[in-house]
Amino acid sequence: MSVTTPAGFTAAATTAGIKPSGNPDMALVVNNGPLRHAAAVFTRNKVVASPVKYTRVSVSDGNLGAVLFNAGNANACNGEQGDRDAAESAQLIAELLDITPLDVAVCSTGIIGELLPMEKVHAGIAALPGNLGTDGHAAAEAIMTTDTVAKETLAEGPGFTVGGMGKGVGMMAPSLATMLVCLTTDAEATPAMLDEALRAAVVPTFNTLDIDGSTSTNDTVVLMASGASGNQPSQSELNDAVLRACADLADQLQADAEGVTKRVRIVVEGARNDEEALEAARVLGRDNLFKTAIFGSDPNWGRVLAAVGMADAEMDPDGIDVYFNDEPVCLASTGAPGARDVDLSGADIVVRVDLGTGGDGTAFVRTTDLSHAYVEINSAYST
Amino acid sequence: MSVTTPAGFTAAATTAGIKPSGNPDMALVVNNGPLRHAAAVFTRNKVVASPVKYTRVSVSDGNLGAVLFNAGNANACNGEQGDRDAAESAQLIAELLDITPLDVAVCSTGIIGELLPMEKVHAGIAALPGNLGTDGHAAAEAIMTTDTVAKETLAEGPGFTVGGMGKGVGMMAPSLATMLVCLTTDAEATPAMLDEALRAAVVPTFNTLDIDGSTSTNDTVVLMASGASGNQPSQSELNDAVLRACADLADQLQADAEGVTKRVRIVVEGARNDEEALEAARVLGRDNLFKTAIFGSDPNWGRVLAAVGMADAEMDPDGIDVYFNDEPVCLASTGAPGARDVDLSGADIVVRVDLGTGGDGTAFVRTTDLSHAYVEINSAYST
Repeated sequence: MSVTTPAGFTAAATTAGIKPSGNPDMALVVNNGPLRHAAAVFTRNKVVASPVKYTRVSVSDGNLGAVLFNAGNANACNGEQGDRDAAESAQLIAELLDITPLDVAVCSTGIIGELLPMEKVHAGIAALPGNLGTDGHAAAEAIMTTDTVAKETLAEGPGFTVGGMGKGVGMMAPSLATMLVCLTTDAEATPAMLDEALRAAVVPTFNTLDIDGSTSTNDTVVLMASGASGNQPSQSELNDAVLRACADLADQLQADAEGVTKRVRIVVEGARNDEEALEAARVLGRDNLFKTAIFGSDPNWGRVLAAVGMADAEMDPDGIDVYFNDEPVCLASTGAPGARDVDLSGADIVVRVDLGTGGDGTAFVRTTDLSHAYVEINSAYST
Repeated sequence: MSVTTPAGFTAAATTAGIKPSGNPDMALVVNNGPLRHAAAVFTRNKVVASPVKYTRVSVSDGNLGAVLFNAGNANACNGEQGDRDAAESAQLIAELLDITPLDVAVCSTGIIGELLPMEKVHAGIAALPGNLGTDGHAAAEAIMTTDTVAKETLAEGPGFTVGGMGKGVGMMAPSLATMLVCLTTDAEATPAMLDEALRAAVVPTFNTLDIDGSTSTNDTVVLMASGASGNQPSQSELNDAVLRACADLADQLQADAEGVTKRVRIVVEGARNDEEALEAARVLGRDNLFKTAIFGSDPNWGRVLAAVGMADAEMDPDGIDVYFNDEPVCLASTGAPGARDVDLSGADIVVRVDLGTGGDGTAFVRTTDLSHAYVEINSAYST
């Protein structure tokens, strides 16, 4: 189960020396066709890295032959030199693969504001084509930064498969570890079908990941189709398989978020509409007092109300219900019997909040606790 | 320098047994007149505690004779019983002071969702009037929760003084420690003058405190005037003294924020208008990756750009400048020479960001780093 499981794809990894650790740090995924269709979605940050600027252009015609990755350096906030380095990387790998530079996507992750060490990048690019093969696992390992495990997935559809790899911790709101995801499929799918499937799949998956409210300059999710299965799925069949692949990767990303000891699923109901439910869920998922309480396994539902009360959403301040792991802890904005005794010692916690408007708006986000390890990892990262 | 320094005020403290620590936990500030004018501002949270509901009503006529405080229990999210307990507390102290219940403000801070232990509260209320005197320091100590030091202030105007005490860590966005502030003045001032002075003073002081984006259900700032100086200041003289008192308390609150090792002043310039500058400053001040980097004394300006880039504010993504302690670390969204070597080891850090729109919008917020101690304090609070 990797990016190379669908027919038509090969992958490679190498150690270019970009990561101080000396671990593998460059990867390549090649679509050998017969189709080279693709779609992609990107960070919503206004400040975007040079590889995002490049890939937005290169994928805009719906075609990609390869995705080039490096970890250890984000190539973000490097001015025009950064743009030139991203374009040069794409051009060099395109020459070696005998495709055009505008059929290459480039994805970078790592520290912001340091120029790419292009001498090392050149050596890595030169080494990658010779390493291409049908074992995609090394590529998944090479794109890791603070990830502790490689993330790979496989979803099967009728007559086709969707493979994938990812790193980082969240699409709309990842930690400093940029989220990069590469999905591959051997389905015969047009660029428009891929685009529709990918945009639909990210909404309930990567877009629900909100680890700390921060959002990277580099987030990229690419989906490529080779058509090598010879089978053309319906749009809904494609949507379904892409969704399952994204959901599995999102679960893995949440589980490996920086410093996580608890995985929290926040469900908001009883909102006037889905948008306001999502706003309330995000405000709660980003509240440090709530997140530290969860770290302490503390059923402190008062912090849930205090956080939700700041959301730009209609609610009945005296009619809010809160459930921890399906146990009522607060009914009509007042503590429920036994609320302080609810056991939150497990690693998976579901928090359900009803805003009490009587509306049927609902949404969920996935977040994590705020732990000592989070502070440790993120205070010691660049120095 | 305390709430009793201005003529016409007495204060008291007692130990009612509400705090598990056994420290003093109830306080009373009495305005002995001749005037009993007052104004107040409250939390913007939609979910508000019973004492806030009560005090909003009691101060609405511009008159207060006393403020009753308890620490250790917020009396928030306790339904109608909470409302009854707040009203009963006001009525009991009013009887003892021979004033009307609607001339009493009540302020509570502590855990949310536990009923006030009214038997203890009754005993505390009974003890307070006998302890009234002109030393206000014990009252400032009794309202502390996770505060490590009592906060008091004094500002002098022409012929009058403004005294004050406070606890907690921020008005619009405090940590779980509710911000309660009581200001007193012997100026002859109408309720309208007090209201104008207080509303103007909170904007550049308490409203700029943003420790972790969380906002309490109980935040209250009360200003009472006794007129005992016999001097009637102009509005601008009153504004000036109240502003200085609030600024001093805001500094003390920031310095004692939970788990703080660094005090950070964020200044945003070059925005299209002040509102967008404030939005960008708040987004940066709440960004955990930025705050953990500051904890690590790490001049990681890339995280500043990544955070600011998510703000709902117009900016030039390729034209953002960042200064740490007046040293340029990022110019035109690109690293400046020596940026990684800027010394952030001190306890006071100024981060200045120019959004590059060419506009003259500017704003600042005060925040802190995100430390291990923050996680420790807030994960172990209620259990």
